[in-house]
Amino acid sequence: MPELGIRALTFDVFGTVVDWRNSIAREISIWGPKKGLDVDGFAFADAWRGLYQPAMEKVRQEQIGWVSLDVLHRMNLDLLADEFGLNVLDETDLDHLNRVWHRLDPWPDAVAGMERLKQQFTLASLSNGNVALIVNMAKRGRIPWDMVLGAEVAGYYKPQQQAYSISVDLLGLDPNQALMVAAHNGDLVAAADVGLRTAFVRRPTEYGPNQNLDLEPKHKFDFIADDFLDLAEQLGC
Amino acid sequence: MPELGIRALTFDVFGTVVDWRNSIAREISIWGPKKGLDVDGFAFADAWRGLYQPAMEKVRQEQIGWVSLDVLHRMNLDLLADEFGLNVLDETDLDHLNRVWHRLDPWPDAVAGMERLKQQFTLASLSNGNVALIVNMAKRGRIPWDMVLGAEVAGYYKPQQQAYSISVDLLGLDPNQALMVAAHNGDLVAAADVGLRTAFVRRPTEYGPNQNLDLEPKHKFDFIADDFLDLAEQLGC
Repeated sequence: MPELGIRALTFDVFGTVVDWRNSIAREISIWGPKKGLDVDGFAFADAWRGLYQPAMEKVRQEQIGWVSLDVLHRMNLDLLADEFGLNVLDETDLDHLNRVWHRLDPWPDAVAGMERLKQQFTLASLSNGNVALIVNMAKRGRIPWDMVLGAEVAGYYKPQQQAYSISVDLLGLDPNQALMVAAHNGDLVAAADVGLRTAFVRRPTEYGPNQNLDLEPKHKFDFIADDFLDLAEQLGC
Repeated sequence: MPELGIRALTFDVFGTVVDWRNSIAREISIWGPKKGLDVDGFAFADAWRGLYQPAMEKVRQEQIGWVSLDVLHRMNLDLLADEFGLNVLDETDLDHLNRVWHRLDPWPDAVAGMERLKQQFTLASLSNGNVALIVNMAKRGRIPWDMVLGAEVAGYYKPQQQAYSISVDLLGLDPNQALMVAAHNGDLVAAADVGLRTAFVRRPTEYGPNQNLDLEPKHKFDFIADDFLDLAEQLGC
C-alpha cells in the first residue's frame, strides 16, 4: 500500500515467524531419549514458554538488571529441572538444550512470504529474542532479515515502548512508516501506542490445538492476514 | 578455515565493501548540474571524506555527545558549503545530497564474494555508518548482510575497542570467532587488539589513482586478499 507510506516491516518472531511449540517438542522427542530424558515435549515446551513473560517482567520492573533472553531462558530451564528430570543432563547438554530457541523452524508460509515482502520493504525482527538467537535462527531457517532489531538492541523488552521506538528510530523512520507484524494482540496494541502501523497474522495453533488466546484480532489493526503470503498479497508484493 | 573456528565475518564498509569516492563523484556529476552546482565530484568527495575522522574524533573525545554518522556527514557538508557553492541547494536537496552515503555502490567483486561467504559464515557490518545508512545501502546494492552491527549499535566509533567488542558480543561469539575484514590497517590493528581475527583486503584505488595509504598490509594479519572473491577462496567458500 504505497499510499500508507510504509517503508519497513518489523516482525514479532516467536509464534509469528517461527513455530516454537512444535519445534521444541520435535527436538526434545528426538534428542531427549538419547540423553536419558523421558519428557512430553509439548508439556515441556508449554511449561518453559509459560515462564517467559514472568522472567522478562523482572527485567521490565528492574527487579534484575538487563540480561539477554538466552540468560532468562536458562534461568527458566533451571526452574524446570526437577519437574522434567533435567538433572541427568550435564552443563554442555543443558546449554545445548537452552539454545533450542536458536533452532526454531519458521511456519511453512513464513520464508516464502518474507521473500516476497523483502522485494518492496525493509524487513527487521522486532523480537524479545537476543541478537545471536535471532541471527542463528535466521541462518538455519533461511529467514531473510535485512536487520535484527528489538529488545537487546533497544535495551528494553516488549511491550515497553522503547523497544519499538528505538528500533524504528534506528531504521531512520517515523513510527508510521513501519508496520508491526505479529500474531499477538498485546504486541500490536503496544506498537500502535508508539505510532507504528499494525498487521495481525493469525497463528491459531501457536499454543497447540486448544489455543484460546489471540485467535482473532481484538482491535482495529491496519491489516489482518491469514499468513505471510496473504499479507504479501494485501501489501501488493 | 574450520580449524580457526571462525563463525562470523565482520566488515568495514566504506572503502572495503563500497566504493565511496567513485559513487559520490558519479552522483554529483549527474545530479549536480541539474541543481545548478558546478562541482568537481572527486574533489568534493575527497574534501567531504577528509572531514570524516575529525568529526568522529569529537564524539570519541566526548567534545560532543553521541550523534549518528548521518548527523556528522551533514555537519561536514555544511562546512563545505562555501567552498563548493552548495548554498544554491535548498534544505530538501541538502538532505538528499547528505544521504548519498546511503547510495554508495559495492565494489564489483563485493556482492558475489559475500554471497559465497554467506553460505558458511554469518556476515555482519561493523562500520561507523549508522544503521539506517547501512540498511538502505544494502537494500539498494543487494549487499547480503545477516546483521548490521557497528558504531551506532555499540554506541562507540571505531577504532574505539567497544565498537568491536560489543558487536562481537551481540553475535554471541568470542572475539577470536570473528574475522574483521577491512581495507585499512588501522581498523584491523584495533580489531586485533580486541582479539578478533583479521583479513586485509586490498582496495588500491579507494582514494583515487594516486592512493598512498593502505596499499599493503603493514602488520601480520590472518588473511591478505586481493578482493572478496579471493577471500572467499581462501576461506574455502
